[in-house]
Amino acid sequence: MAFESKIKTIEWVDTYSRMVDQTVIPYEYKFVNITDGQEMFDAIRNMIVRGAPAIGIAGAHGVVLFAQALAKESLSRDEFVSKLIEKAEYMKTSRPTAVNLMWACQKQIDVIKASKSDINGIVEELKQNAIKLENEDIEINKKIGDYGAEVVPKGATILTHCNAGALATVGYGTALGVVRSAFAKDNTVQVFADETRPRQQGARITTFELAMDGIPVTLITDGMCSYFMSKGMIDMVVVGADRIAANGDTANKIGTYTVAIAAKYHNVPFYIAAPLSTIDTSIATGAEIPIEERSHEEVTHINGDWICSDKVKVINPGFDVTPHELIAGIITEKGILRPDYNKSIAEAFQK
Amino acid sequence: MAFESKIKTIEWVDTYSRMVDQTVIPYEYKFVNITDGQEMFDAIRNMIVRGAPAIGIAGAHGVVLFAQALAKESLSRDEFVSKLIEKAEYMKTSRPTAVNLMWACQKQIDVIKASKSDINGIVEELKQNAIKLENEDIEINKKIGDYGAEVVPKGATILTHCNAGALATVGYGTALGVVRSAFAKDNTVQVFADETRPRQQGARITTFELAMDGIPVTLITDGMCSYFMSKGMIDMVVVGADRIAANGDTANKIGTYTVAIAAKYHNVPFYIAAPLSTIDTSIATGAEIPIEERSHEEVTHINGDWICSDKVKVINPGFDVTPHELIAGIITEKGILRPDYNKSIAEAFQK
Repeated sequence: MAFESKIKTIEWVDTYSRMVDQTVIPYEYKFVNITDGQEMFDAIRNMIVRGAPAIGIAGAHGVVLFAQALAKESLSRDEFVSKLIEKAEYMKTSRPTAVNLMWACQKQIDVIKASKSDINGIVEELKQNAIKLENEDIEINKKIGDYGAEVVPKGATILTHCNAGALATVGYGTALGVVRSAFAKDNTVQVFADETRPRQQGARITTFELAMDGIPVTLITDGMCSYFMSKGMIDMVVVGADRIAANGDTANKIGTYTVAIAAKYHNVPFYIAAPLSTIDTSIATGAEIPIEERSHEEVTHINGDWICSDKVKVINPGFDVTPHELIAGIITEKGILRPDYNKSIAEAFQK
Repeated sequence: MAFESKIKTIEWVDTYSRMVDQTVIPYEYKFVNITDGQEMFDAIRNMIVRGAPAIGIAGAHGVVLFAQALAKESLSRDEFVSKLIEKAEYMKTSRPTAVNLMWACQKQIDVIKASKSDINGIVEELKQNAIKLENEDIEINKKIGDYGAEVVPKGATILTHCNAGALATVGYGTALGVVRSAFAKDNTVQVFADETRPRQQGARITTFELAMDGIPVTLITDGMCSYFMSKGMIDMVVVGADRIAANGDTANKIGTYTVAIAAKYHNVPFYIAAPLSTIDTSIATGAEIPIEERSHEEVTHINGDWICSDKVKVINPGFDVTPHELIAGIITEKGILRPDYNKSIAEAFQK
């Protein structure tokens, strides 16, 4: 039973990619049109688009944009294919942690390699594949939402961290997809949203999109989660993922690991909600996931203002890894995977 | 071996109280003179002065200011004493959680009740007592620092939350007193400072005062503590306290409890540093400590700007309670108290 969300985060339109500009939420809700591959690379790096599934689609769109530009150069088919694959590989490097980006760019590379068409035909096939990935993303999220809703208790308060919502995907969301599906069945469900410093995606984006869809949301600061858990006010935690290793270890926004430890201490079930495309079975454990180190200004400044001494040192890891033993289940489009994850993940890929 | 700090947070000067205005740090380091009792009440409530030991002294100063004003009215000695005790009781209510405020105001009430002097004599005795409490506060902090330094490993990285520094006391600090004493012995000691949302005392005040005293400090966001602990980069945690129950349960700035749980999970020792005046033996456990609910704007705004949807709900507890089982030791001016705290706390008061 799917909830109807008002949000479509990213969409291919004729010859360009149209996306919600996430850097200006919650102050503005506006769209930007990306017409060039390098522009898409920068939009991903600068987080105009963010959220692992959404940047996957953005990467796929970026490959189409590169293809459109290369198609206007006077290249042989072989030159075109070789240069385009180079550009698609480059697009994978726009951010290092989310595996969906590599996955979606690779899906486009597979289309290029498999194509029997001429240059314009390849461009058209890439475009159709990008649109297919978009539609699949929403369908997958609705399945994740519906599976997840089955484990949401009646009248639950669900804590989430960062934004794994409609605005982190093409639409509907993964963690917030679970919230939407649960809310469609039971409108007494509500959300507590961690602010998620440094970039405040919980405050800026999660509260915005839930309010837009009429779902009750309470904003808390990142340090408060344990307080509310100790008061019995949090029934479950659901967050998204940027990359999941074969054993279930999960990289997600910095601070997720702290919430998972607090949940364990209070016996609050902690779930990951993510499509199978987020699972990287090529790596055995979370120790192999590269953690992006981001700009120090994200920590030392808010809205352009200094918030600390200018003599301070900073380390700003963008992600942390939650070990599998803290995770009650991984909610995917193939159902809820449970420990032992090595086994349940391998089985999900065979379904 | 005490470190020489440049900071004197609050000081009685002739007829008024002079204090660092903590609302403008780190942008400005300026002093305000408080000349009136009600003005002091408001300065405490609005956190121009903050930190449990500092607001204790501020409360004591406030009682002197009320006494000076009442002494100018044509009251009988009995009327003066009765009205002044009423004002001192009122001063205790300027903030609810820190017990040092009640403790220091009560010390002034004890002076009033014990005095054999006339009205002007009582005013003078209150003033002398306030100055005595100031001097004792610094002496106590140096003792806390020196006891604490004994458990700081060589080259340690010490994580702290909020500000229990020189700027939370008359000078030197409790948790940061431990840092100062440790740094005086071993200048390879360094600090990781939690930002401490919502009011960012860690970012604004702790980084400022450590930089001012030349002690290396790295700013992290509140959610990051577990990440750095998992990397083996944090050797111990030391924080202050607003109120400690007879069993060792400790109220401190919101978010402290989350850090304590993370420390337990990683086997990082978690210490409280606080004077005995922070211990409230009249309450058996932390469940009895009143938790101040603060303004919602502290969560929804930073530096005057909205950071979230304006349709969001907010709960803003100013403090949380860390249960005694997460605390490795309570560093006081009488030494480091260890579990069982009911026993060690009772013994410390008999020393």
